[in-house]
Amino acid sequence: MKKLKVGIIGLGTVGTGVFNVLQEYNDIEIVKIAVKNINKPRNIKNLNSNILTDNAFEIVNNHEIDVVIEVAGGVNPAVDILKAAILNKKHIVTANKELLAKYGSELFKLARENNVIILYEAAVAGGIPIIMPIKTILCANKITKIAAILNGTTNYILTKMAEKELSYETALKQAQELGYAETDPTGDVEGFDAAYKLAVLSTISFNKKIDIKKIYREGITKITAQDIKSAKELGYRIKLIAMGQVLEDGKIDVRVHPMLVSKKHLLAKIDNATNSIMLTGYPVGNLVFTGAGAGAEPTASSVVGDILVLKANLNASDNPNPLPQAICNHNERANQIDIGDTYNEYYLSITASNSPGVIGIIGTICGKNNINISTIMQKGINTDNTAEIVVITEKSKESDVQNALNELIKSDSIQKIDNLLRVMN
Amino acid sequence: MKKLKVGIIGLGTVGTGVFNVLQEYNDIEIVKIAVKNINKPRNIKNLNSNILTDNAFEIVNNHEIDVVIEVAGGVNPAVDILKAAILNKKHIVTANKELLAKYGSELFKLARENNVIILYEAAVAGGIPIIMPIKTILCANKITKIAAILNGTTNYILTKMAEKELSYETALKQAQELGYAETDPTGDVEGFDAAYKLAVLSTISFNKKIDIKKIYREGITKITAQDIKSAKELGYRIKLIAMGQVLEDGKIDVRVHPMLVSKKHLLAKIDNATNSIMLTGYPVGNLVFTGAGAGAEPTASSVVGDILVLKANLNASDNPNPLPQAICNHNERANQIDIGDTYNEYYLSITASNSPGVIGIIGTICGKNNINISTIMQKGINTDNTAEIVVITEKSKESDVQNALNELIKSDSIQKIDNLLRVMN
Repeated sequence: MKKLKVGIIGLGTVGTGVFNVLQEYNDIEIVKIAVKNINKPRNIKNLNSNILTDNAFEIVNNHEIDVVIEVAGGVNPAVDILKAAILNKKHIVTANKELLAKYGSELFKLARENNVIILYEAAVAGGIPIIMPIKTILCANKITKIAAILNGTTNYILTKMAEKELSYETALKQAQELGYAETDPTGDVEGFDAAYKLAVLSTISFNKKIDIKKIYREGITKITAQDIKSAKELGYRIKLIAMGQVLEDGKIDVRVHPMLVSKKHLLAKIDNATNSIMLTGYPVGNLVFTGAGAGAEPTASSVVGDILVLKANLNASDNPNPLPQAICNHNERANQIDIGDTYNEYYLSITASNSPGVIGIIGTICGKNNINISTIMQKGINTDNTAEIVVITEKSKESDVQNALNELIKSDSIQKIDNLLRVMN
Repeated sequence: MKKLKVGIIGLGTVGTGVFNVLQEYNDIEIVKIAVKNINKPRNIKNLNSNILTDNAFEIVNNHEIDVVIEVAGGVNPAVDILKAAILNKKHIVTANKELLAKYGSELFKLARENNVIILYEAAVAGGIPIIMPIKTILCANKITKIAAILNGTTNYILTKMAEKELSYETALKQAQELGYAETDPTGDVEGFDAAYKLAVLSTISFNKKIDIKKIYREGITKITAQDIKSAKELGYRIKLIAMGQVLEDGKIDVRVHPMLVSKKHLLAKIDNATNSIMLTGYPVGNLVFTGAGAGAEPTASSVVGDILVLKANLNASDNPNPLPQAICNHNERANQIDIGDTYNEYYLSITASNSPGVIGIIGTICGKNNINISTIMQKGINTDNTAEIVVITEKSKESDVQNALNELIKSDSIQKIDNLLRVMN
């Protein structure tokens, strides 16, 4: 068997995990590793510092190298590096969700033109096998729905808020102290990371190009301890859900936002930093894939899995494109709908006057906007004699709900709309 | 693209599902279908009765046919039919777990010699993608543990027993009336079906040949409503668990039996006819795959998935064996240990005299046999003045537990050992 020669771009957590796992394979040679700072002290067993470079183009332009493994993340300079690698006929294995969400379409086109393969199992949900199963064994399915927990940091924060009745700020701080959240947590807590992963996942699931710019995105920073408590009382957990669905008219609804998830739903039972993906398709029905969505070792499982599959295929044939993945393609652009045109059940938390007519006012304004209320509860009286009111609606159009909120806030009896969340049963 | 020509053996529930799904593919032609009774009235859309035959060898010996799809089940005559097919250089897609558990090793050897491929995603857990993920994207892992619910019928019965406090007999009868259990339920309720699937799954997971005859097997027929109730009080659900693990000395422990599963464990949350597989491996950690384990449509998802992967590979190359699956092999025989040599926590239900010394007697006999008790509870007094006692042990050796049971039953204070179940936390 021919030795596979690889270059690795990035030697952070994931890169180190990949380096370590590849030590087991005598038939895979790491020719070069590109790092930011070549002089940084690194405590990595078996690492020969001679193979380090701070110029990724030394990998991309190296004639020996068959496969470029990109685990550095970010769009710049990754996009230029990988384009150059593809033009140099190198196969690509990448964990870079942001790059694929933003430039995937361009990179895949370039790869097809240059007869090379891009594999990216690690880009979505870390160690969970999802990309290759969808592209191979599930290929007989028309997938119509995705509902997933794709970000471990936010799921960890929401779990701790629920378990220990913490505020968002306290739970975030603890997550940062334990290394579950970064010093600047924006990418996770505002839903960017989940949206990138969802763009990649929904593109291959629905076989249409999903535009990351059209994915509605809302983070978890506005979730309060009171929301979590009210949700629990109503039989729900709050989770940051990445969802996508093909509607009856063929349009596609893709978005990331927190949701109240019925405690009977399997996703409500996914705690801490675990990720989980529910797919609904015909003929398979519902499938749920659960596992570690991040971390050096689980991510290395997917990166090295891609490398081994690529190697087996390159060995098996002179044709460089014999991967079963070839049977799926996604050239057509998805017709993505706006959040305003989606239909959902809603959880609405309101601070209102503690006066007899207020439930009537809320009911009237909702009714006028085509919103049926299924539950309305007064949660308690505040010291300033305002009342906390929680409303659960039947399925309603988002734009109607936004109109109702605009009317509610104008009412003298309503002090504040505390939160509006969507509900998944 | 070349048209793929297939023959189907079996047109029952699964065969019909496969036939229906294949109608979507213009580049796959069903040349012939073998059935038991060619004259049986069938209400299948687009079925041309001219392609039916009651002689499977007409498929196996047909020069046109590239792939034989075996969805008839059973060992005889399937084993002879598939051997003949392989000798005739036909690729095989099969859903037949019993055949693979008993003759897999022989069939795979013959396939290698004849340069054909056997795919069998549907043989384990119906629609859940598990075989191909293990053989491809998870191939960098050393899998050390499997814990799975692989039989929908028994999980349905156990769920109904728990939800509605039914006896085993009543729950079985209801399952039969609803079509979840067969008239002769032995294959499911005695654990044979789960054991076949576990043999196939553990062989590829541990990369060693697992001998079905050495898999310890115990069904659910002895589970009582009282066991389920006691388990619930202790924080457990009872599930038929197919488990396998690689021990520190490299020996392998593979078995199917009911277990008390901690309600915090994801497998405790899998209800009704759903299947779920937890794999533990390095570097990936824990993964859980959940979905429909049976039924025409989910099973067809896996069978047609295999056909599409095979087709993509055959098109991509003149070499008929370019599947990534090639990177796993399992020629070495597993060293499987006896149930007596396994270590488990136990649930023990005993009918004893309602006398002061009885807890002492149980404690003494357990202690003498190296068994530490973690909980002992009297569950109630029967009308004949006997008491129901439940014992939970710490991790103990099965042979020690069996010795203790033999001693307990000889004691005048012990009327009956009602049940012994193993515990998973």
